[in-house]
Amino acid sequence: MTPGCPPEFVALAHRLADAAGEIARRHFRTRLAVDTKPDHTPVTIADRDAEAAMRELIAREAPGHGVFGEEHGSTRTDAEFVWALDPIDGTKAFITGLPTFGVLIALTRAGSPVLGVIDQPVSRERWIGGPGMPTTLNGRAARVRDCPGLAQAVLYATTPDMFQGGDLAAWDRLRGRAALTRYGADCYAYGLLAAGFVDLVVEANLKPYDYCAPAAVALGAGGVATDWAGAPLGIASGSRVVVAGDGRAHAEALACLRASA
Amino acid sequence: MTPGCPPEFVALAHRLADAAGEIARRHFRTRLAVDTKPDHTPVTIADRDAEAAMRELIAREAPGHGVFGEEHGSTRTDAEFVWALDPIDGTKAFITGLPTFGVLIALTRAGSPVLGVIDQPVSRERWIGGPGMPTTLNGRAARVRDCPGLAQAVLYATTPDMFQGGDLAAWDRLRGRAALTRYGADCYAYGLLAAGFVDLVVEANLKPYDYCAPAAVALGAGGVATDWAGAPLGIASGSRVVVAGDGRAHAEALACLRASA
Repeated sequence: MTPGCPPEFVALAHRLADAAGEIARRHFRTRLAVDTKPDHTPVTIADRDAEAAMRELIAREAPGHGVFGEEHGSTRTDAEFVWALDPIDGTKAFITGLPTFGVLIALTRAGSPVLGVIDQPVSRERWIGGPGMPTTLNGRAARVRDCPGLAQAVLYATTPDMFQGGDLAAWDRLRGRAALTRYGADCYAYGLLAAGFVDLVVEANLKPYDYCAPAAVALGAGGVATDWAGAPLGIASGSRVVVAGDGRAHAEALACLRASA
Repeated sequence: MTPGCPPEFVALAHRLADAAGEIARRHFRTRLAVDTKPDHTPVTIADRDAEAAMRELIAREAPGHGVFGEEHGSTRTDAEFVWALDPIDGTKAFITGLPTFGVLIALTRAGSPVLGVIDQPVSRERWIGGPGMPTTLNGRAARVRDCPGLAQAVLYATTPDMFQGGDLAAWDRLRGRAALTRYGADCYAYGLLAAGFVDLVVEANLKPYDYCAPAAVALGAGGVATDWAGAPLGIASGSRVVVAGDGRAHAEALACLRASA
């Protein structure tokens, strides 16, 4: 256990993931009403109920902690410990029957992620880890792989549509130099990076509940996770992330993204 | 059973999928050497061995049939029955540990698909069906859903990079009018369409072994499958496909794609 994350909160994180995953599975591939949020993204009762279940558990078991959730807003975000919750990351996958969506749970301490969970409720794969706490996948050690540089890198992003203006030009430059680029895996891409099958995930227009858990999981697996300026990711970071398994690929990706930024 | 597909070949299709899926599972998330083919796409021993296993079964059980495979070429393609085989559709997903790749098996008769299989070896989901043979997903009826038009449609394609020149302009026009667009599911998108969770799959730069099985599965589920000119898909079709669950969305998509083509 890391000094950053008391062990009782690791156990709580598992219970949060159990609760959210159970709700996600219950609604998956049923005929759900899909609402559109003000930011034009879809949401369902599964997103809302899964987050509510996690918030109830936190309120009961760690009442002094803050929560920053995708669906039900912020509570006590000035607390030392704040949970960043995305009950269903990949709602578009979820509502179209694709089982690659995930539950994202991060515990931040003084703004920095100290623990992250990426849970795939359908395939029942769970990554958990953080800085100082080695990442596991279903209890077995997960570890990034070596990648000497961008030219050897397998690169993922959810969709090119997340990049606007100069960011899109930077993304196009980056993928032009990577060995292979794939879209569409949402948070699964970060789990595959932490398991040594993907080298780089570069995204933009994210919220803290999208990137805090993946960042912690990648760090615990030996990876690097920063914003596009190279600063560590925290709950107050910007919306652009570069997560890499190998520091050499990370450095090259940063330089490539900055070239015209 | 359809008059187009003798029942013994339905049983053979299941055995082909069993054989290919077993090989894919054995190699999934192992450290595989990845070769690059002349068309710059990746290939592994799993692709090659899975196709070889299917070809051996066909040679033994239906020696008069032709085979058109992604990895080992064409044999006897002037036969009445020709199998179109893609042992691992979504090799990029496969080599990066993402379990959404699939095995595609189509039986064509006089050039037209009469039976299709989309098999997901990791999640163990199998769609099988064709024109005149209602599609099933793991033995239960699979059926497209209603979609009154493009504005209500959930649209999938593997990647925007499959569209070039005028096709890219047409794709951008189409996704601008759809309700929701997602990338990255490979053949899984056609299965989800046949199960009533996706409304449209529009792709380009495909080969017959990529689209014949998805087309048959969609037709057996009540959908529509044509090229971008509206002609039925066959082994000699071009590389551009429009597959829809509802004929109204299909007609609107065709009109939209053609507008400047």
